[in-house]
Amino acid sequence: MLILFYTPNSCALASHLALELCGLPYETRKVDFANNEQRSPAFLKINPKGRVPALVTEHGVLTENPAILTYISQSAPEAQLAPLDDAFAFAQLQSFNSYLASTVHVAHAHRYRGHRWADLPEAIDAMKQKVPHNMRECFRLIDEELLQGPWVLGDKLSVCDLYLFTIGRWLPGDEVDIKEFPRVADHAARLQQIPAVQRVLETQ
Amino acid sequence: MLILFYTPNSCALASHLALELCGLPYETRKVDFANNEQRSPAFLKINPKGRVPALVTEHGVLTENPAILTYISQSAPEAQLAPLDDAFAFAQLQSFNSYLASTVHVAHAHRYRGHRWADLPEAIDAMKQKVPHNMRECFRLIDEELLQGPWVLGDKLSVCDLYLFTIGRWLPGDEVDIKEFPRVADHAARLQQIPAVQRVLETQ
Repeated sequence: MLILFYTPNSCALASHLALELCGLPYETRKVDFANNEQRSPAFLKINPKGRVPALVTEHGVLTENPAILTYISQSAPEAQLAPLDDAFAFAQLQSFNSYLASTVHVAHAHRYRGHRWADLPEAIDAMKQKVPHNMRECFRLIDEELLQGPWVLGDKLSVCDLYLFTIGRWLPGDEVDIKEFPRVADHAARLQQIPAVQRVLETQ
Repeated sequence: MLILFYTPNSCALASHLALELCGLPYETRKVDFANNEQRSPAFLKINPKGRVPALVTEHGVLTENPAILTYISQSAPEAQLAPLDDAFAFAQLQSFNSYLASTVHVAHAHRYRGHRWADLPEAIDAMKQKVPHNMRECFRLIDEELLQGPWVLGDKLSVCDLYLFTIGRWLPGDEVDIKEFPRVADHAARLQQIPAVQRVLETQ
């Protein structure tokens, strides 16, 4: 049985969506960030990074969305959530997910987690101020260059779509209107219609 | 023919090392960051992100180290640079590479690229000041938790080792002594002995 450790409205939603769409049995455990449970000794035993998502599998624990998303895809090939038989298309999937993890998520994180990178209060404020600009730059690139359409990788829905949808939900909080990016907005609206996506959103 | 766009001493070194070790024919093209060539129209056509590494393949261009590293591994399976037949071990590889890309590289980037996340000069200074602390935290986690030994994933060298070696070379510039992390220091010393690694380092 796969067990996903998550907190609502975090990037763990991407892994949660992949679990719901893949058809494998799974359970979830909510980590109470309001009470700093992610730094508790019990959770640090599961993930010494003190972050979500963390996926407990029969082989051990996995962390980092890009790794969890492809692991779920490989564990349920019949769900066709990744182009597993095409090395270049698979690399494009990885490239997109890596961009979300290392650039877009990082751009967003400077709003709420600036203390990770500086101690000066004025610096933390200055980082917050630049978040809308940076998120806009990232989503412009996605809208104009990366999203092949209708899905991220072209004709077939993949885990990239779930991850993009997850991070796109942060745009209003980052003071960016998703409608500035018509292809991304249309993409999100189509995902929102999928019953499995709706089921997961009810848990957030 | 694979063509790697790189700049010396950047994270593109990881992909360069993988190309040298994999045995496939390849060429390199140096991008002149001192003259801002990464923002030139010609380079932006290759990689609209304006970053390195970018790998030109017969199918198209790939960006982001985690994607390039697994693509090279899959394109030259005989080099055994990734556990391609074990989904969990492969996910561990991805998890490690994703951590380097989205946390460790990002921690380092706040020394030289603070302007990405804030405009205030005092903020950029404050970010620089915290880099040694953050790099130390990252390498402590790698040393104590993530590096299985003797190689990152255990008995076999993989692309994870090349990527860790690449980022470890930034520690002196980040005012951190690699000897604080004895297992990481030993790991780097062993990689430095490999003739293919030495050949690539001569080009940096």
